Amino acid sequence: MGLQNCTVAVVGATGAVGREALGILEQRGVPAARVRCFASARSAGVTLPYAGSSVRVSEIGEGVWKGVDVAVFCATSGVSKQFGPGAVRAGTWVVDNSSAFRMDPATPLVVPEVNPEALRDREGPALIANPNCSTIIMLMGLNPLRVRFGVEGVVVSTYQAVSGAGAAAMDELSRLAADALAGRAGEPKVFIEPCAFNVFSHNSAVDPANGLNVEESKLIHETHKIWNDRNVRITPTCIRVPVYRAHSESCAVTLRNPASETEVRAAFDGAPGVSIIDDRAGNVFPTPLKAAGGDDVLIGRIRPDPAHTLDDSGRSRHWCLWICGDQLRKGAAQNAIQIAEMVWRN
Amino acid sequence: MGLQNCTVAVVGATGAVGREALGILEQRGVPAARVRCFASARSAGVTLPYAGSSVRVSEIGEGVWKGVDVAVFCATSGVSKQFGPGAVRAGTWVVDNSSAFRMDPATPLVVPEVNPEALRDREGPALIANPNCSTIIMLMGLNPLRVRFGVEGVVVSTYQAVSGAGAAAMDELSRLAADALAGRAGEPKVFIEPCAFNVFSHNSAVDPANGLNVEESKLIHETHKIWNDRNVRITPTCIRVPVYRAHSESCAVTLRNPASETEVRAAFDGAPGVSIIDDRAGNVFPTPLKAAGGDDVLIGRIRPDPAHTLDDSGRSRHWCLWICGDQLRKGAAQNAIQIAEMVWRN
Repeated sequence: MGLQNCTVAVVGATGAVGREALGILEQRGVPAARVRCFASARSAGVTLPYAGSSVRVSEIGEGVWKGVDVAVFCATSGVSKQFGPGAVRAGTWVVDNSSAFRMDPATPLVVPEVNPEALRDREGPALIANPNCSTIIMLMGLNPLRVRFGVEGVVVSTYQAVSGAGAAAMDELSRLAADALAGRAGEPKVFIEPCAFNVFSHNSAVDPANGLNVEESKLIHETHKIWNDRNVRITPTCIRVPVYRAHSESCAVTLRNPASETEVRAAFDGAPGVSIIDDRAGNVFPTPLKAAGGDDVLIGRIRPDPAHTLDDSGRSRHWCLWICGDQLRKGAAQNAIQIAEMVWRN
Repeated sequence: MGLQNCTVAVVGATGAVGREALGILEQRGVPAARVRCFASARSAGVTLPYAGSSVRVSEIGEGVWKGVDVAVFCATSGVSKQFGPGAVRAGTWVVDNSSAFRMDPATPLVVPEVNPEALRDREGPALIANPNCSTIIMLMGLNPLRVRFGVEGVVVSTYQAVSGAGAAAMDELSRLAADALAGRAGEPKVFIEPCAFNVFSHNSAVDPANGLNVEESKLIHETHKIWNDRNVRITPTCIRVPVYRAHSESCAVTLRNPASETEVRAAFDGAPGVSIIDDRAGNVFPTPLKAAGGDDVLIGRIRPDPAHTLDDSGRSRHWCLWICGDQLRKGAAQNAIQIAEMVWRN
């Protein structure tokens, strides 16, 4: 059962995630007549192509929710705080892509493949938070291991696409790359560092006390909430790379119980939403270009951590893997629409 | 005392590392009359600019070493194996950038700031191996911590420039980036994956038995040899990023003895060859663009691993840092010429 009979609103429809959400609704077969698009006054009146037809963007406001079953918020935290609770009061389910309510104890934070129980028997309408992109993509890769062996901790270094900073950042990557190729020194505007032919520490604010940036804090706290386990040790380093729209993550995982390589690989058999690309002989593994535009999170470079010896039965608690997932899709719009499908089914 | 009175040969002078070596010799004030350039027959006869003058490239051969005090090999392992031992027999010190002799127990493997003792009182001429780029850059960042606190292990994920695969790879990055910006699907030739707007597992061969690629194995075994400690636990993941010439490395280090943040930072005070860029308030940290063309390895994002609590005295054994260094300079040519300076001084 899908969203075909559901009236869905996309808030922030003209942004990078909003446009992706519309594309996914179109793929899911939701007719144009059941789609509402909202944005700020600046974008109101714009017409977006949709399923061979088009949808007109209206200005977001407090009185727009009549007849809207589910609203997917793809705008800023400020917009979600201003209009999200009112939408729920007006009888609309809200799935919120922003960080506004993620750590609110009363708000479920959901990756459907990971913690669907957070939505079970939930009375609605309510607001459901969509996790941060790097959290979703990491957990898609680690959750099958957690289910089978438990996860004690992970050291994760990210290779994050610029799309996480929006469409303007993707344009900046193109502009600065063209400048660099032409021998011109282009001026960064979205980021403080040049994003073309460079990598840099994630652009979110750094806590002066502990040195963590906000992206790293999200990885820690959102994982603890989604897995309902504050004891998982997470050591994150979040880095931007000159890639348009898919994130990659290098993970060194410590399991609670030892596993053999066969057992580790078997843990991914039939796991929803993930695909294995792991051809050692051909040196073929996941890349962000392979993940871009796809539904699945890609996993490869599955190998025992060479810093730890296998036990007599060939098992270890220490494993490495490499995960790539589309930041705009599974990292944002697709996960949000999966949540919409779950609450609408409820 | 420098190399001004030393006759220095650069083997593989027309390659990316060879050209960098010439630039460094020029900076060091070695006159053109004391520089010899060798390459394969294909490049023989080429004239390279040098210190306002030029140097002609001759074909490498067995009888070329007369009058050459130090030869810096910047070519393939095959060339080093074929001509390196003969050069030593002919009375020439050899500094070898290739991997040919690195793990030979009789051959010193040297980062001058890290294990100068490997060259102390060494009789020559002899062949000295230059470590792999990712090893040199990581050890420049970690060695000050090892000296003060000991290092038990490190989980390291690399963000490696394409320059490690030579000048052709740097050209491929420009070509494929231009293709992508123009909406054309360019064909990769040097790498099997497109290197523009993408990241991918390092292009070296993957061991089918343990899943490690050769670059990762080098990080482990070369570190064990340079630090003369086979017990250091190294968990490497080596990844290529669309950057021209400087490598970055995300490190989560476990020290043998706990240290406070003040003590960790003090360990880098006066450490040769490293500079700290670590402005949390401004979100200003090392990048490969900042490291490119410079002598120093840049270190930042120094912070306690949030997965481990500080002890009552504010100390921890678990620290994170971010290291960037020029792959062609400190990662290759510069380190080799520093070795040349050490052996010539001997």
